[in-house]
Amino acid sequence: MSSQGLAHESGVTSAQVRKDLSYFGNFGKRGLGYRVARLKKEIRLILGLNRRWRVALIGAGNMGSALFSYKEFHRQGFDFAGVFDVSLDRVGLQWRDLTVRHIDDLEADASRLGMEIGVIAVPARAAQSVADRLVAAGMRGILNFAHRRIQVPATVALRTVNLSIELESLAFEIKALNPRGTRSRRR
Amino acid sequence: MSSQGLAHESGVTSAQVRKDLSYFGNFGKRGLGYRVARLKKEIRLILGLNRRWRVALIGAGNMGSALFSYKEFHRQGFDFAGVFDVSLDRVGLQWRDLTVRHIDDLEADASRLGMEIGVIAVPARAAQSVADRLVAAGMRGILNFAHRRIQVPATVALRTVNLSIELESLAFEIKALNPRGTRSRRR
Repeated sequence: MSSQGLAHESGVTSAQVRKDLSYFGNFGKRGLGYRVARLKKEIRLILGLNRRWRVALIGAGNMGSALFSYKEFHRQGFDFAGVFDVSLDRVGLQWRDLTVRHIDDLEADASRLGMEIGVIAVPARAAQSVADRLVAAGMRGILNFAHRRIQVPATVALRTVNLSIELESLAFEIKALNPRGTRSRRR
Repeated sequence: MSSQGLAHESGVTSAQVRKDLSYFGNFGKRGLGYRVARLKKEIRLILGLNRRWRVALIGAGNMGSALFSYKEFHRQGFDFAGVFDVSLDRVGLQWRDLTVRHIDDLEADASRLGMEIGVIAVPARAAQSVADRLVAAGMRGILNFAHRRIQVPATVALRTVNLSIELESLAFEIKALNPRGTRSRRR
């Protein structure tokens, strides 16, 4: 496929496609374009998606439940290998093939089952203590959905998802589309 | 507060703080820094956060439930004014002060209650048809949590949240921290 074709599929310019891919190596041939199968394999290798990752989900509330049901994680190579909570109302619940475990079991389970990524879906006030336990349990990366900045050692990868910023950005884009603030309601 | 102080709080350089803010106007005084209260007000105005927004939530499943419970939306000025679904198991459920409504009621409710933003939390296969209904109901912006690219008129702002990319980026960062792939498990 040509860089024009890739550009069309991904909604960027062909120059951007060529530039971005050239950061990682020499994937295309001038005048011939890219071999899609090889390109896909190379990109998955670069992204660390040429393998499956075992994930510990902390928090079996609304957010945890939504993340557990999010099918795209599994498709991209991420498998929830354990769900943990502190609430005795939730510990012991059956979630598909998993039983919700007490957070005190995290360290032993993570080691036994080879979990390497922790997902934090607990209230903000508990986020740092959960992060500390995930680090102690040997996680290599943490994805934080709690609305609180957390600290981890430099050897652990950390990303924080702020859903609020998505709505804030949308509000900004709405304003940008209609800067005078007049509402042109379509019926 | 000085740009150094703002930089420290936000984790970027002071030059970046000054550069970013200068895009929008002359907020600081050389040698004196920024008046925090005025700066906050100006930024909220720029972002369209100097007002409240009424939001229609489509999908009362796991993801919808998690978003409805996400307290930060309300704190930033976004209020769910209606929850809609197609499932007769869910229509009629009481969610705090709201009753889950049938999607067929969207247009009338949106107009009556002044909803301007739609949040899509339905399965991927239903995302485009829900988007079409949100557009027909006069929404000015749509936040899409379904894993499907959707099309809306250029007059409607659109953002798609891909939670999978967050885990993929984390996997990439883990690889970058430990490129040889050796696992240095801390006990």
